[in-house]
Amino acid sequence: MNKKYSIKDIAELSGVSVATVSRVINNNGRFSEETRKKVLKVIKKTGYQTNFSAKNLRMNKSFSVGILVPDISNYFFANVVQKIEKILFNRGYSTFICNTARDENKELAYLKMLESKGVDGLIIISGAKAFDISKLNSPNKIPFVCIDRKPKDRSNTVFIGSDHYQGAFDATNSLFQAGCKFPIIASHNRSSSSAVDRLNGFKDALSKNGLDFDSSRNQIVITTNDSTNAIDLLLKENPQIDGFFAINDSIATNVLSSLLRLGKEIPKDIKIIGFDDEPQDIHSYPTLSSVKQDTDKIAQVTVDNIIGLIDHTAITGESITIPVKLIQRDSSL
Amino acid sequence: MNKKYSIKDIAELSGVSVATVSRVINNNGRFSEETRKKVLKVIKKTGYQTNFSAKNLRMNKSFSVGILVPDISNYFFANVVQKIEKILFNRGYSTFICNTARDENKELAYLKMLESKGVDGLIIISGAKAFDISKLNSPNKIPFVCIDRKPKDRSNTVFIGSDHYQGAFDATNSLFQAGCKFPIIASHNRSSSSAVDRLNGFKDALSKNGLDFDSSRNQIVITTNDSTNAIDLLLKENPQIDGFFAINDSIATNVLSSLLRLGKEIPKDIKIIGFDDEPQDIHSYPTLSSVKQDTDKIAQVTVDNIIGLIDHTAITGESITIPVKLIQRDSSL
Repeated sequence: MNKKYSIKDIAELSGVSVATVSRVINNNGRFSEETRKKVLKVIKKTGYQTNFSAKNLRMNKSFSVGILVPDISNYFFANVVQKIEKILFNRGYSTFICNTARDENKELAYLKMLESKGVDGLIIISGAKAFDISKLNSPNKIPFVCIDRKPKDRSNTVFIGSDHYQGAFDATNSLFQAGCKFPIIASHNRSSSSAVDRLNGFKDALSKNGLDFDSSRNQIVITTNDSTNAIDLLLKENPQIDGFFAINDSIATNVLSSLLRLGKEIPKDIKIIGFDDEPQDIHSYPTLSSVKQDTDKIAQVTVDNIIGLIDHTAITGESITIPVKLIQRDSSL
Repeated sequence: MNKKYSIKDIAELSGVSVATVSRVINNNGRFSEETRKKVLKVIKKTGYQTNFSAKNLRMNKSFSVGILVPDISNYFFANVVQKIEKILFNRGYSTFICNTARDENKELAYLKMLESKGVDGLIIISGAKAFDISKLNSPNKIPFVCIDRKPKDRSNTVFIGSDHYQGAFDATNSLFQAGCKFPIIASHNRSSSSAVDRLNGFKDALSKNGLDFDSSRNQIVITTNDSTNAIDLLLKENPQIDGFFAINDSIATNVLSSLLRLGKEIPKDIKIIGFDDEPQDIHSYPTLSSVKQDTDKIAQVTVDNIIGLIDHTAITGESITIPVKLIQRDSSL
């Protein structure tokens, strides 16, 4: 266990040249992912680890990444963060998750703390309307990628997000195709870029089907855990409402239970589609249609880009949109 | 902003003596929490921060805490971790959350990484059957508290957990009180200490009501997302089953939707109670009864103890049990 291995031993055990081992340790990019894995495995096994760590210290690399999340109890965030952590861990990186509770001051405090802990890169899901890295002490020192919510300035980062607009458009359009004449959107009162995109997709689908968006009749903002009274009032004023596109599944579930309490038959009287495809959607009554984000793809692209930026093999300025998929279940048929 | 403040300025602005400011900075415990807050607020405001940070470095204190979580997408874990983070942040500590995916090797890797980042304390929700800190390089250096899952050795930590046994006992007993003659337990196939306690509470409630536990008839282990076939089979073999105590709400929701698919009326034919009181319980159809863990209390006691251990004002060896509460809704009436 405590035998001292030389770089020559590592090269021999890995079946590569000393120069390649050195390149892997220096992480200069001119080697395959397969070679990297092989060499790192040998380094780990032999306990060459210590020298390696010292090297990392000298090169200021800690093989750790920080993630800012607005709300870890949100299904989509928890899901994508878990997948990112898993891929990063398999590539030799630790992940520190910081829950910012959608609070900009807390976001900044955690950014500074992660900076001081020497993480190699940051993955930002910002609670702010438009994330602004320039508030950091040394904004250009740590590479970062932004997911889900668009940053203020995209030139110094890579942005990765689902096609929220298309998901909302497809969901709303499918309500019309299923026979709805007057669908409305159920949203929350936060204005993230993803929420704005989903609202725009809804509006354009209305427009495509010959309706003009009127926020007083085509939108309900759900702010309480039980929205039965608010929905009752809206339906009395607008009895033509026959469909809901909910901006997320939590709101869709809330709307669904309210409508059942009001004696509506779903999907006969009113159809519903949510967003995020949460696991309990298949257990709701009736089962809930929803727009599924491709969290596997988002996680993979995020990790590829943050490691690429850390290793200087990726470039900033890109904006990557990941397709979504409408999952039809009983609530919208 | 950049004016240099002296310790005398801080004392004056805080309305306390220089000695008290010094005690707060040195964190030796001989001052009230109120004084501490007052002084830290002034230190923050004035930018005395820099000297303070240097001091922290010298005293090896980073005002950061690491949390190990087996699964951040689990409602209870996410909920309690969020509350812990909030209280810690208000007391001047940053929280680094590490998702261990119930993997003991990952757990150890994160422990070592948090140790190397110089966190002041650790909060452990272990995925392991019995958490063992002795695998760490310097197990006695960092104070830690364990929540929810009992550690192997309680002498060097504080253990904080809900009264899982009592919650399961009360839930099961209430099924008998509501008229059930043959309730069964629906569980998962993991053996955390909390799962063991819940099973024991169920068994003892059976026994109190004159039934002997028989795992082939009184227990169903739910391993798939749709357990309709497995439940159908069990009900055909044991038509006397008229109640389910589910070990968590996710399994309760799974069982509920399966029973509805099998044409059962809930609660008329079969009653159900879950565990964790997840937010969607009030939106299920019928609304789901559940055992509520007091996450506010768990978070507060956890923070009090980890800061107490860091500041040498708390002692190890304690085991703190937090009461739970049965919330009756339509599914068990």
